[in-house]
Amino acid sequence: METKYLSLKPARVDNLNQQTMTKGKISQQGITTGPFPSSKKIYEKGSIHDIKVAHRSITLSDTQTAEGEIIHNPPVTVYDTSGPYTDPEYVVDLEKGLPKLREDWINKRKDIEQLTQLSSHYGQERLDDSNLDHLRFEHVNHEPLKAKKGSIVTQFYYACQGIITPEMEYVAIRENQQMQAVKEKYRIHRGECFGANIPEKEVTPEFVRKEIAAGRAIIPANINHPEAEPMIIGRNFLVKINANIGNSPTSSSIEEEVEKAVWAVRWGADTIMDLSTGNNIHETREWIVRNSPVPVGTVPLYQALEKVDGEVEKLSWEIYKDTLIEQAEQGVDYFTIHAGLLLRHIPSTIKRVTGIVSRGGAIMAKWMLHHHEENFLYTHYDEICDILAAYDVGVSLGDGLRPGSIADANDRAQFGELEILGELNRKARSKYVQVIIEGPGHVPMQGIKENMDLQLKHCEDAPFYTLGPLTTDISPGYDHITSAIGGAMIAWQGTAMLCYVTPKEHLGLPDKDDVKTGVITYKLAAHAADIAKGFPGAQFRDYAMSKARFEFRWKDQFALALDSETAMKFHDKTLPDEGYKSSHFCSMCGEKFCSMKSTHEVRDMAKKMKEKTDLFKESGGELYL
Amino acid sequence: METKYLSLKPARVDNLNQQTMTKGKISQQGITTGPFPSSKKIYEKGSIHDIKVAHRSITLSDTQTAEGEIIHNPPVTVYDTSGPYTDPEYVVDLEKGLPKLREDWINKRKDIEQLTQLSSHYGQERLDDSNLDHLRFEHVNHEPLKAKKGSIVTQFYYACQGIITPEMEYVAIRENQQMQAVKEKYRIHRGECFGANIPEKEVTPEFVRKEIAAGRAIIPANINHPEAEPMIIGRNFLVKINANIGNSPTSSSIEEEVEKAVWAVRWGADTIMDLSTGNNIHETREWIVRNSPVPVGTVPLYQALEKVDGEVEKLSWEIYKDTLIEQAEQGVDYFTIHAGLLLRHIPSTIKRVTGIVSRGGAIMAKWMLHHHEENFLYTHYDEICDILAAYDVGVSLGDGLRPGSIADANDRAQFGELEILGELNRKARSKYVQVIIEGPGHVPMQGIKENMDLQLKHCEDAPFYTLGPLTTDISPGYDHITSAIGGAMIAWQGTAMLCYVTPKEHLGLPDKDDVKTGVITYKLAAHAADIAKGFPGAQFRDYAMSKARFEFRWKDQFALALDSETAMKFHDKTLPDEGYKSSHFCSMCGEKFCSMKSTHEVRDMAKKMKEKTDLFKESGGELYL
Repeated sequence: METKYLSLKPARVDNLNQQTMTKGKISQQGITTGPFPSSKKIYEKGSIHDIKVAHRSITLSDTQTAEGEIIHNPPVTVYDTSGPYTDPEYVVDLEKGLPKLREDWINKRKDIEQLTQLSSHYGQERLDDSNLDHLRFEHVNHEPLKAKKGSIVTQFYYACQGIITPEMEYVAIRENQQMQAVKEKYRIHRGECFGANIPEKEVTPEFVRKEIAAGRAIIPANINHPEAEPMIIGRNFLVKINANIGNSPTSSSIEEEVEKAVWAVRWGADTIMDLSTGNNIHETREWIVRNSPVPVGTVPLYQALEKVDGEVEKLSWEIYKDTLIEQAEQGVDYFTIHAGLLLRHIPSTIKRVTGIVSRGGAIMAKWMLHHHEENFLYTHYDEICDILAAYDVGVSLGDGLRPGSIADANDRAQFGELEILGELNRKARSKYVQVIIEGPGHVPMQGIKENMDLQLKHCEDAPFYTLGPLTTDISPGYDHITSAIGGAMIAWQGTAMLCYVTPKEHLGLPDKDDVKTGVITYKLAAHAADIAKGFPGAQFRDYAMSKARFEFRWKDQFALALDSETAMKFHDKTLPDEGYKSSHFCSMCGEKFCSMKSTHEVRDMAKKMKEKTDLFKESGGELYL
Repeated sequence: METKYLSLKPARVDNLNQQTMTKGKISQQGITTGPFPSSKKIYEKGSIHDIKVAHRSITLSDTQTAEGEIIHNPPVTVYDTSGPYTDPEYVVDLEKGLPKLREDWINKRKDIEQLTQLSSHYGQERLDDSNLDHLRFEHVNHEPLKAKKGSIVTQFYYACQGIITPEMEYVAIRENQQMQAVKEKYRIHRGECFGANIPEKEVTPEFVRKEIAAGRAIIPANINHPEAEPMIIGRNFLVKINANIGNSPTSSSIEEEVEKAVWAVRWGADTIMDLSTGNNIHETREWIVRNSPVPVGTVPLYQALEKVDGEVEKLSWEIYKDTLIEQAEQGVDYFTIHAGLLLRHIPSTIKRVTGIVSRGGAIMAKWMLHHHEENFLYTHYDEICDILAAYDVGVSLGDGLRPGSIADANDRAQFGELEILGELNRKARSKYVQVIIEGPGHVPMQGIKENMDLQLKHCEDAPFYTLGPLTTDISPGYDHITSAIGGAMIAWQGTAMLCYVTPKEHLGLPDKDDVKTGVITYKLAAHAADIAKGFPGAQFRDYAMSKARFEFRWKDQFALALDSETAMKFHDKTLPDEGYKSSHFCSMCGEKFCSMKSTHEVRDMAKKMKEKTDLFKESGGELYL
């Protein structure tokens, strides 16, 4: 695959500094753009399809040896979720939305049709309401795409037909992070992957296709969200993370939510879920989807409940169905659907310490008890799958009975529901709907593996998407950490995507700072798992960082860090002067006690002594290499 | 064991609010005192010895059921490292130091003598220097205790003689956290302890004795540090954490370091290490030891190096030996000694990515190469053990070759040194010196267990004391988290004590905020491990927290949190009014979407329907319990 340093064609050629729209509906002031330190956006071309895959390339400074020799350090290519926002040549225009990267790919497939109007009553109603004009995304997608009658348009279906789509080639190139080009030799630890099928050297498009065809991976890619850059969720790929955003009845504006979305992908969110429950969530979602370079997930039940003013008993299949269609036509890439929680599971939650802690699960339990009827998401599951397949919306089978406390972990309620999720997974597969399975929750460390093992068993290797798990209940304010511990472990054992937890978990709605802390924390947990699984090239960035550390290339360390800004801020707190960016110590140990500085001296001494002595002959002279 | 709500006799009866000494040498303004929210200090009496063991008791509010019934929630007793500082009846006087809790116990043993002067030249020199009078702790211990000739005064020796000391009974009571008294029934997960010898129901004094006699646990308890409350470090006890403090050549005063020490124990540090490398470290240490309610560790090599103005080649056994005696007579409870790094190990570090990252290791490597001599800590190890045994200073065998990057983990250098640590462990045991073994470092997740397994094998179950390990190198600024992931895992697998890592790791000297973040992060990792090991009662605080959470007892949640202040601050950020401390939702989901609120409604509905319907007969009516 040829690599070129191309740039996306700017969507609009404008003044680069014009970040505030003067005439628009939305301010862009809060949108953080621009490249990362020492980094540029590069685009790698495909060899099967005419595609350009975005990476971030981190330029490093040279190594200067003690003898004055200059050694070039090649740039490090890393996975980049930030989309065009970090491309300096791209001019952000929230009013217009992101470029439609996948538009041609989708159109070329000839299995879709463009509708002449929205299929959902609610969507059409909102569109026709001129009172909403001032809020509405101007270029709203009011003639959405849908599969032609008799056609199936999911990546899963194509994979089963032996077709390698542009999306599949895109993710193959993306997963590799150009590691095939790495010439440097460094010590790589053998991975332990618990029976997974991690590729040995690189991810090929055919490997991607096979994994999708086996139901072991999905590419969430609604045909109505052509702006998203394809990404893959599966046990045999890099571990992904999701960031939840969304307004609440008491706070947040459209502007803020778009800002949070762009902020979350900047720091590394592979998908975002819009969990809005507040005002104008239809319009808010439109703005988010049109401006999101990553797949967007939702829990349609939340909006359905809003439509009946929060009165659970008034929920109905008809309202829910209309909501599914409404959101599918906006371009939502995956839906969390709590179809596995059945009437018969409720008794086993009664003695739990924390009952039902999934919002969707609690809503459905209430509805079932009120109506004395089985969960309508379960009884109408076939229809749901048909709707999803027509737009290639993935289903994320919600774990309505996930434990909300250590005490409730791995209980009858939880695992009873998991078995039903297995059944629902099989049904979805038969209709070529892409499936992921949601997982806990609060689980003590010794109970984590059982979750992974049972999920793989009941759901036949469908990708697992877990929240944490949190390994203790007693540290509110630090639950990003209690959950990153469990998250790293379960991702190592096979979870494909981790749903982040922020420091505000159990306490309140996260703000922008919390979103960033949650994303970075989960990024590092996911990365620790990639290394442990033995994913090809996963250890390279660590190697580059450690080498920069040992050579006191401080700026390179900041550039290679998951959060360059914080690393630099912490360093500069005690040693702010520019000179300290190349000094051979930091304030942690000071000059005399810096062990790395001493090691350099040890090596120099060893070298100088090489010819003088044979004291260390027994070591085979290796000391003096 | 009888429990009484007694209070330590105040060291001085003064105005409680007088926190700033007017005439003294040191300001007490930075010292945080006073009890935790809803908590009081309680003292539990021993049954063998006349001892009073401090616990923290958290008072909870009552549960009010939907039917208006009031159910009392018993207080939760938790392990308390904060010492007298959180006892409102105790008046802090840094100038006088803490009460000498263990003085009588030590004197009663009749195997010690009080010296008439300090045995170390340096100690005596500093004492005689009137220029230091203004800095010196006034009641400096200038007639230290030492074992009588022919006597051995270590807890290890006593244990081997079948003696249960007051220290042993103290830690037994402390470890139990009054869990034997818990009447509440809650679901406890079976632990997985990887072949450890975790007590089934409670820790008895005899169990403590046996573990110490087997070399599987230590009580660091220098006879010259009677102020410290006994604590135990061992795989079959609660996981402990250490916090590093200490000044550096560029910053910090005595006041600040004492402040950091009290701050660290307030948040949960089980031991502190004074790693000062700056000015007046002898005097700084005296202030810290006299005011520390937890054991204090040091790396004597640092001060030895300071004594030769940082010129490594001038280090000598004589200077080092005098430093050991100087610090042993001040009351340091354990010394990190890098005696396992030998000349023959150095070659295998030459090709490492990050060389030698232990400060002590780097210093000794430099010294060895310069002198072409074997490590003097190794060649004089017998003498070192004799000195340590005379004061009951524990030895923490330093891992001078711990890996400083993922690339260097589990390599020949590291494991070669570990074998020597095993040899040194056996030697120390033969002299009844208490031993712990230091461990890595940077290790990818799949390599952690090998570290634990080899440590247990080579060091014959001696307690492991690890730094992290850090599971990735790429997240400076968040290394408390990358290391808490590895820390929780290795503690679960058997590490007895974790050395904390702060957010400033690799970047600069931690400040007070960093110390707190590091301590809380490690507290939660250690606790997650206690639960996973199946330590008796470890899950109870989680249960109490979850129950409070489900019942919307917000103040109880804050009180039970590891960091009450932060939890409350986060909650109050969006819902500050007092009324929200009992509201049945928080700003995370809002009122309509609170799953726990819904669960209560589900349960109420189930109850009301109980007699009306038999729809759920197949569940045995359990739904309506």
